[in-house]
Amino acid sequence: MSFLISSGGLIITIGDLLEILFATGNRNKVEEAVQALKPRGITVKHFPFEHNEIRSDSLEEIAREAVGVAYLKCRKPVFVEDSGLFIDSLGGFPGAYSAWTLSKLGLAGILRLLHGVEGRSARFEACVAYHDGTQVSVFKGVCKGAISIEPRGSSGFGYDPIFVPEGRSQTFAENITLKNKLSHRYISLLEFSKSFVSGS
Amino acid sequence: MSFLISSGGLIITIGDLLEILFATGNRNKVEEAVQALKPRGITVKHFPFEHNEIRSDSLEEIAREAVGVAYLKCRKPVFVEDSGLFIDSLGGFPGAYSAWTLSKLGLAGILRLLHGVEGRSARFEACVAYHDGTQVSVFKGVCKGAISIEPRGSSGFGYDPIFVPEGRSQTFAENITLKNKLSHRYISLLEFSKSFVSGS
Repeated sequence: MSFLISSGGLIITIGDLLEILFATGNRNKVEEAVQALKPRGITVKHFPFEHNEIRSDSLEEIAREAVGVAYLKCRKPVFVEDSGLFIDSLGGFPGAYSAWTLSKLGLAGILRLLHGVEGRSARFEACVAYHDGTQVSVFKGVCKGAISIEPRGSSGFGYDPIFVPEGRSQTFAENITLKNKLSHRYISLLEFSKSFVSGS
Repeated sequence: MSFLISSGGLIITIGDLLEILFATGNRNKVEEAVQALKPRGITVKHFPFEHNEIRSDSLEEIAREAVGVAYLKCRKPVFVEDSGLFIDSLGGFPGAYSAWTLSKLGLAGILRLLHGVEGRSARFEACVAYHDGTQVSVFKGVCKGAISIEPRGSSGFGYDPIFVPEGRSQTFAENITLKNKLSHRYISLLEFSKSFVSGS
């Protein structure tokens, strides 16, 4: 038997694998988390979760509230992840409302907003909030980049076809391997995994 | 002494005037409510109120939750009002997130989203939620119209310079008298005032 120590206490695991629930309604996010955390001995299980998030510009505030609700429902170690695309020339729009905005305007709407605008810099931000049964810990990831002129590629989801990470030429949707190594979500999950100290 | 009966019970008033608190952080809204309700014997007092609304596409859901919180703070008959601009060709965007969207994109951003789009029909919706101490009642108002090609006029606030009510040619910001008689907010406040039955 091995164990991992989280910031909040001791978690006993069987066969070197720690199992943590990921509360989300987005299966794409689950897939990304599975890929990111498996090499680090953490098994991610999907906890289907639909929740009316609070209205806030802060991903951390949203994630902290959501994981509290998720924990009350599953009563097991659980994390949530909230992320957003922040476009500098639009004052950080769509930010914490990225998923909702995309559902209304589509990628075409975002591109129309940037039509003729010189500055296309943007960043993806992610915030993982983990509830270990006693306390909530938060882990952040940022990926800087720019908005492309038109959508390119078919991998990933959400804004991936129009986001080009800094120093690269392909969008996340054109190069999913790149996304899985550079993305805001990957970085926040990596930070999250580092919070566990393995022992035996 | 006269009295007014609300749906939730009896409210004694002095000198034929009913005083109700309007919980909001928006002084423009207070001014509109004062003008709309004064002729109906209802005195509106501003109750300064900043609140993290819930995230929802439903104005009613948002208003019901907010008035519950407002009542807990003031412990007096109180109402809130939530409103939004719903643009048909944008799937109802910006809807319940109208104030936030305006703060990020400005009127120019909304117009850019509609650039080259034929359908410019839109509607303003308002929802008043009133807490009389025992229960919450809801009153709605809708004003149909269209988005103008460019901003016109300097009265009102928010989206008024780009909203032309149905059958008219001027924007709300060009003709504030028109707004005060036709607007979604006025209609919802009128419905609200009708819920009180005067007696003596």
